[in-house]
Amino acid sequence: MDRLEDVLQYTARTVEATLDELLPPVAGPRGRVVEAMRYGCLGGGKRLRPLLVISSAGLFDVPESGALRTAAAIEMIHCYSLIHDDLPAMDDADLRRGRPSVHRAFDEATAILAGDGLLTEAFAVLADPRTAGQPEVRGELVAALAEAAGPAGMVGGQMIDLSDERGSLDLAGITELQQLKTGAIIAFSCAAGGILGQADPDDRAALDGYAEDLGLAFQIVDDLLDTEASTEDLGKPAGQDAAAGKATFVGLLGAEAARHKARDLIGSAERRLERFGERASVLRQIARFVVDRRN
Amino acid sequence: MDRLEDVLQYTARTVEATLDELLPPVAGPRGRVVEAMRYGCLGGGKRLRPLLVISSAGLFDVPESGALRTAAAIEMIHCYSLIHDDLPAMDDADLRRGRPSVHRAFDEATAILAGDGLLTEAFAVLADPRTAGQPEVRGELVAALAEAAGPAGMVGGQMIDLSDERGSLDLAGITELQQLKTGAIIAFSCAAGGILGQADPDDRAALDGYAEDLGLAFQIVDDLLDTEASTEDLGKPAGQDAAAGKATFVGLLGAEAARHKARDLIGSAERRLERFGERASVLRQIARFVVDRRN
Repeated sequence: MDRLEDVLQYTARTVEATLDELLPPVAGPRGRVVEAMRYGCLGGGKRLRPLLVISSAGLFDVPESGALRTAAAIEMIHCYSLIHDDLPAMDDADLRRGRPSVHRAFDEATAILAGDGLLTEAFAVLADPRTAGQPEVRGELVAALAEAAGPAGMVGGQMIDLSDERGSLDLAGITELQQLKTGAIIAFSCAAGGILGQADPDDRAALDGYAEDLGLAFQIVDDLLDTEASTEDLGKPAGQDAAAGKATFVGLLGAEAARHKARDLIGSAERRLERFGERASVLRQIARFVVDRRN
Repeated sequence: MDRLEDVLQYTARTVEATLDELLPPVAGPRGRVVEAMRYGCLGGGKRLRPLLVISSAGLFDVPESGALRTAAAIEMIHCYSLIHDDLPAMDDADLRRGRPSVHRAFDEATAILAGDGLLTEAFAVLADPRTAGQPEVRGELVAALAEAAGPAGMVGGQMIDLSDERGSLDLAGITELQQLKTGAIIAFSCAAGGILGQADPDDRAALDGYAEDLGLAFQIVDDLLDTEASTEDLGKPAGQDAAAGKATFVGLLGAEAARHKARDLIGSAERRLERFGERASVLRQIARFVVDRRN
């Protein structure tokens, strides 16, 4: 486990530096939105998605600068989604990563714009030749991210999460919701390594399978933590889903079966990586970390 | 003027059909966000930006399908910005194009997501090989749109528009605000034709100059209409800027000098097109239309 901790720290540090460099502060009245974008994506988070990009890119000898820029772009998307999800009209969350959410630290209009700005900037980063020399690679990254983040992915998942039907979803419904809301971006994070490395179809399919298992396990563990962990551990209020009457994996399966399912999925995720041998050791460790994490 | 009216009608019809095709309705709970995206960008608007794309693409013999898809992508960006600008936390506008704004017709959360969805989908369209066969052209479109729409463009302009400094901006400040908030996307709309047609640098510079003059004239006329036109003509409440104590071109220059400046800019815009001869006749007519319009 030592090795993963080192990788996590290294990733957190380098992704932070890359985001800082990609979003330099700006003077004058429009500087406020850049400040809010920086507040929303610097200084926190597990950086799980960037770690998946960097680890999957590592399977294919992708230059580190391109992997880091792609990782930063995905983190911008993830952070934009948190900023918008926290808004009063959505989850109305005052706290994120143990600090005031963006609309509390700034104001609602600035938070909306900061999310819009991060979403836009992510595409600017992916379309930049410094991310990948070959234009077809950049094009594929942009297309795949747009698919994963849009109405057929994350935005669609958030819509289901806010819908009137949300309370009464069955297991298939919850699974679809989570595959869209969080799974699609996790899947893109793994796929990005294969795109950057122009991997062959079999390698890509193995990564897709790993990502699907991992994403679902991640969400089940999130549900478990929401019922079991403390607000202090989470950096956000615990017990929110149950309080909001939302159907969850834990509610539908019970805590024990949910934990069992998460472990099964992680076993399956690890088996998907067999073809990569020792090179996939960090991806394997990430899978185990996802079920063992405390927040 | 007959010819421009025909072109306007044709553009409105084909862009509408392209948007309709790019955003098909979806069943199930996530269908609501797609429905709101469709409501926010179908069935209205001058379609000025699409017209600029199609007319500038026409200078360089760009295939119509690529120009239309690019035009639709820009219209998605424009409509996302209207949806978010209308939100209660921003301009709090109940009316848009003579109908309830998206958050009034649906709800605030759905409107935020619909804007996010349109912004994301615009990049999906530009990155699609059906928009341009050469990957470097698609990459250039994505990069230029992200620049124009992000914190160094439209999002930055909207931040200035909402800032505490907004009331006391001088002419240089108002000009910068408008160049970011509306000018950047208008400029991209014209530049897109040159990108799609892989035009030479001199042709691109001429289009950039035209777009800059046109964008500023467009905004000055907007200010004039806000003080002079009726709510019925505009399809949104008139007199909003003055009521909000916002500095405007009309407030700073007076109506007569503002109208004079708009006409000067349009004269300059037309001269920028000289190198294109007769091929630019629609772009010339658009320039005149922009100062003569009633809404």
